[in-house]
Amino acid sequence: MDQEVAIVLVSGGMDSCVTAAIAAQSYCLAFLHVNYGQRTEARELEAFNRIADHYRVEQRLVVSIEHLKAIGGSALTDKSIPVPEHNALPASSMQSPIPSTYVPFRNAHLLSIAVSWAEVIDARKIFIGAVEEDSSGYPDCREVFYEAFNRVIETGTKPETRIEIVTPLIHLTKPAIVRKGVELQAPLKLTWSCYQGSEKACGRCESCLLRLKGFREAGVPDPIPYES
Amino acid sequence: MDQEVAIVLVSGGMDSCVTAAIAAQSYCLAFLHVNYGQRTEARELEAFNRIADHYRVEQRLVVSIEHLKAIGGSALTDKSIPVPEHNALPASSMQSPIPSTYVPFRNAHLLSIAVSWAEVIDARKIFIGAVEEDSSGYPDCREVFYEAFNRVIETGTKPETRIEIVTPLIHLTKPAIVRKGVELQAPLKLTWSCYQGSEKACGRCESCLLRLKGFREAGVPDPIPYES
Repeated sequence: MDQEVAIVLVSGGMDSCVTAAIAAQSYCLAFLHVNYGQRTEARELEAFNRIADHYRVEQRLVVSIEHLKAIGGSALTDKSIPVPEHNALPASSMQSPIPSTYVPFRNAHLLSIAVSWAEVIDARKIFIGAVEEDSSGYPDCREVFYEAFNRVIETGTKPETRIEIVTPLIHLTKPAIVRKGVELQAPLKLTWSCYQGSEKACGRCESCLLRLKGFREAGVPDPIPYES
Repeated sequence: MDQEVAIVLVSGGMDSCVTAAIAAQSYCLAFLHVNYGQRTEARELEAFNRIADHYRVEQRLVVSIEHLKAIGGSALTDKSIPVPEHNALPASSMQSPIPSTYVPFRNAHLLSIAVSWAEVIDARKIFIGAVEEDSSGYPDCREVFYEAFNRVIETGTKPETRIEIVTPLIHLTKPAIVRKGVELQAPLKLTWSCYQGSEKACGRCESCLLRLKGFREAGVPDPIPYES
């Protein structure tokens, strides 16, 4: 019998790569990549395709949702808002702890695209590498959000469809994700996490700092090159 | 004090026009139109702008999500699937009663865009003219779907945001919607509902049949021109 199809949301970063490695244990993979106007898109798409080649993924969908850039509100898509450095942990203040790199409600867009595609290609699972603890306080990276979204899928798709979002990393720390990736031989050297984007990762942005901290605490060298 | 802002999802059809008329009673309006690759887009956008002009709406956002067309699966976006005629009511069979004009999970995409925009422009309400009874069985037109989506908004946006989806037509019949539109002086003559799309409405597609039935049962003439 053919394996069931699972869609994996693959940004090209480490978390999505480890998520793909987990999904590959039980499913035939279909990869979805969403360009939402982020600064480092070209580099992320390159990482997506390299990871897809590694897993010999045939069904690939690359979707562009430029409207998130038009709507604005985030340092990741709006060049007038600077990307913060040295800001790996949310500030504890009375202000909102949401960093300026938060793209408003972004993951709802990604999931909606994944669900529409799942209905058409008859995939039963949608894997997303969201991480609750290390997510810098992004509200749409929390388990409650995904539980609520599963209810939206139940109520908003054809009655015969059974599509479920799976978040295998949601309660893992970054070092645990690194260890899981190493254990499953995920191609971490092909991934890209940096928010700035050039030939090498900057090593200073929020995303690089979280990644480097994860490798350090896991006691594993990060296989990608960094500036300086 | 300034009026609170409400985003209204305006397709250009009758239901969204009446929804705008309801929202206009209490809110400053912002109009959102989403092009998802449907066949009649140019005509719908024209209707959107005419209705927006009527209500003197300054904040307008027109967003294109061509990926629903790329994903396919619906007669509305895929030219290889014919638009059914004389199919105003779901067939009662053991098969799925979902018609071929269903665009998989479409309303989740529309709502996600509306919520992202609401976070940026500080709108508190999102009005959508979904109708449960007359919706031909589209699963994402039912109240349970919107209730579930409100929970996704609660969990997936910044803690200080208070955004809520409002569905004032959800339990109305088409004739009740027509009567409500007439009562509120909604510009029904500016609307467009036909799934085919040419100079005049076809009068035969599912959407035209529902609309014509609504006007007939309300005892009000439909102010738009039809073919033949």
